[in-house]
Amino acid sequence: MMLDVADLAKRLIAAPSVTPATGAVFDELEAMLTPLGFAVHRFVRGDGPEGSDEAPVENLFALRAGPDGSRHIAFAGHLDVVPPGEGWASDPFMPVEHGELLHGRGAVDMKGAIAAMVAAVAEVPAEAGTISFIITGDEEGPALHGTRALIDYMQAEGIQPDLCLVGEPTSVNRLGDMVKIGRRGSVNIFIDVDGTQGHVAYPHLADNPLPKLVAILSELDSLTLDTGTKWFQPSNLEITDINVGNRAHNVIPAAGAARISIRFNDLHTGHSLSERVMAIAEKHGGRARPVISGEPFLTEPGTFSKLVSTAVEAETGIAPELSTTGGTSDARFLRSVCPVIEFGLCNATMHKRDEAVAIPDLAALARIYTRIAKAALALAETEN
Amino acid sequence: MMLDVADLAKRLIAAPSVTPATGAVFDELEAMLTPLGFAVHRFVRGDGPEGSDEAPVENLFALRAGPDGSRHIAFAGHLDVVPPGEGWASDPFMPVEHGELLHGRGAVDMKGAIAAMVAAVAEVPAEAGTISFIITGDEEGPALHGTRALIDYMQAEGIQPDLCLVGEPTSVNRLGDMVKIGRRGSVNIFIDVDGTQGHVAYPHLADNPLPKLVAILSELDSLTLDTGTKWFQPSNLEITDINVGNRAHNVIPAAGAARISIRFNDLHTGHSLSERVMAIAEKHGGRARPVISGEPFLTEPGTFSKLVSTAVEAETGIAPELSTTGGTSDARFLRSVCPVIEFGLCNATMHKRDEAVAIPDLAALARIYTRIAKAALALAETEN
Ligand SMILES: [Zn+2]
Ligand SMILES: [Zn+2]
Repeated sequence: MMLDVADLAKRLIAAPSVTPATGAVFDELEAMLTPLGFAVHRFVRGDGPEGSDEAPVENLFALRAGPDGSRHIAFAGHLDVVPPGEGWASDPFMPVEHGELLHGRGAVDMKGAIAAMVAAVAEVPAEAGTISFIITGDEEGPALHGTRALIDYMQAEGIQPDLCLVGEPTSVNRLGDMVKIGRRGSVNIFIDVDGTQGHVAYPHLADNPLPKLVAILSELDSLTLDTGTKWFQPSNLEITDINVGNRAHNVIPAAGAARISIRFNDLHTGHSLSERVMAIAEKHGGRARPVISGEPFLTEPGTFSKLVSTAVEAETGIAPELSTTGGTSDARFLRSVCPVIEFGLCNATMHKRDEAVAIPDLAALARIYTRIAKAALALAETEN
Repeated sequence: MMLDVADLAKRLIAAPSVTPATGAVFDELEAMLTPLGFAVHRFVRGDGPEGSDEAPVENLFALRAGPDGSRHIAFAGHLDVVPPGEGWASDPFMPVEHGELLHGRGAVDMKGAIAAMVAAVAEVPAEAGTISFIITGDEEGPALHGTRALIDYMQAEGIQPDLCLVGEPTSVNRLGDMVKIGRRGSVNIFIDVDGTQGHVAYPHLADNPLPKLVAILSELDSLTLDTGTKWFQPSNLEITDINVGNRAHNVIPAAGAARISIRFNDLHTGHSLSERVMAIAEKHGGRARPVISGEPFLTEPGTFSKLVSTAVEAETGIAPELSTTGGTSDARFLRSVCPVIEFGLCNATMHKRDEAVAIPDLAALARIYTRIAKAALALAETEN
């Protein structure tokens, strides 16, 4: 009989782990995996003060090696959660059932999914192949020392999964209605324009930077980056901030600043878009500084996606939509290791007050993950 | 022999009077005017705390009545000064001579000019006509309880000057090179655009207000309000501030705000421009809130300006340019009482560190003011 996924989820939820997470929640996961035959390696990265980008982050890599030459599927995810915020009906770190729902921070994003992974692999015999867990304590935060550090560790150890399943909550209205086969890239670009301060009554002695800033933003806003691709929405640019901070009504300010955010598909790279925005900024007398937070990726539909869809449909009766919508996830790092697909619980309450998972979904997800693991490990060398 | 204008200026400078001013500096002026036959009326308006728009402001109205039916010229100005700021070579409220220069806060704006007015009227016999002083302690501040309160007082008392000479520092490079016969109007307009906050990855669930704000500002910046008139520069619009204050890189903000400042000639009114900007803001989904700080005015060149120009040229050899450039002044209020012209010292150091007046300019300005007073009082009833 399968492990009780809800019980496992409760144990993880009951260990508070607001990002970045270390300690107790990892103790719980280690205590679940060791009896299943996994060798667990944990390490902490970052030595900065609490609240800084360099605050300590715990990571866990667990491996159960199959026979020589066997396939290797990795389950990836995070044990940190976003801060609970105010107004919960019950303690966010005290898992509580209301009818079919299990409430608690992380119930869907993504302690519930990690519980399902644990229960799933317990159903897969060791001889079927190699299974690993790539679990970070910093996905919701700066993500500097999280999954990237785990990838570094794996490379140093010569560990190379064939496929990776990330357990982010990809389902929308019903468990199984959406699988993510890619993610858009993301870049924030900071725009600055300098001028010469002066009095509004003597504009010829000043150089107002704001008409230049407005011209830059106007041109950026009018761009059509593309019209989408077979698997991606059109790329989208949003002006997210403009700040001058000039309180003096009669003064032409010396400088102005703005920020834009672009979510883009695989027709672009963070670099190509940055160059384009920088050229527009410079044309109007400003400058642009890009911060790329992720490049787009696509795991072309094929064997892996089919295997996932088949598993989902077998348990839920739903043929999942293959999607690349939404924000970024750690899949943007893992895609450098092997083909990555994301599938998990319904995301309606993620990051929200009273986050909750439907308890039957937990067991169903575990069964789906078991099917995925077994099918992935059964693939021939040439199939991916 | 004329009163020593530099001495009078020093007495006024030595009484610190950072805006809004009350007390000592008015005591000094009263002590100068009383011996010259002026009836001095002083009053304080405003009862708010220091630093507020309602902080107490002192005003002084002084009158020396001429024979029944005689003409009346008013000299107007302010005894408050802008804060000295840091870095002066000497104490800003300790008048000190360096060669030809007299240093001190208010030396040119405009205690020096008020000293020149006092010395000037001492040279005008009482029989020549009626002379008054309209002097406020709040021209550099909010100007709520300054010259406007003096105008209310005069109206209540039935006092009606025929002409008014404001002693603002209008000269640019040499004493006498510029006379102001009008001022542009001024309006600040606050623009707001509301939207719906959301995540940049799901723009269809949000409504970004910033493209609308940029469209409004872009259209406003492209306006040509006019090409100027015979006496006025083209009206000018400056974007002076834009603020959103959205620190979250992945968030589409809920609202954006901007401020513009328009300096405009007499082809417009504050109201007409406000309506125009409001229509543009509304067209793009925003709204605009105007704050009119002054309407434009023009004292059409004629008898009064000719009389001023003649006086200036007689003492300096320069035919002054008749101008309407620059910022606003209290002339914008006094123009409702009678024709107003502004003439005073060189403005190069006004509002600056180490503000200084050339001492010979003080005596020359006093002689010019004497000529203006005598000529204005000698005009026939029908001339203005
Ligand atoms: Zn997550
Ligand atoms: Zn002034």
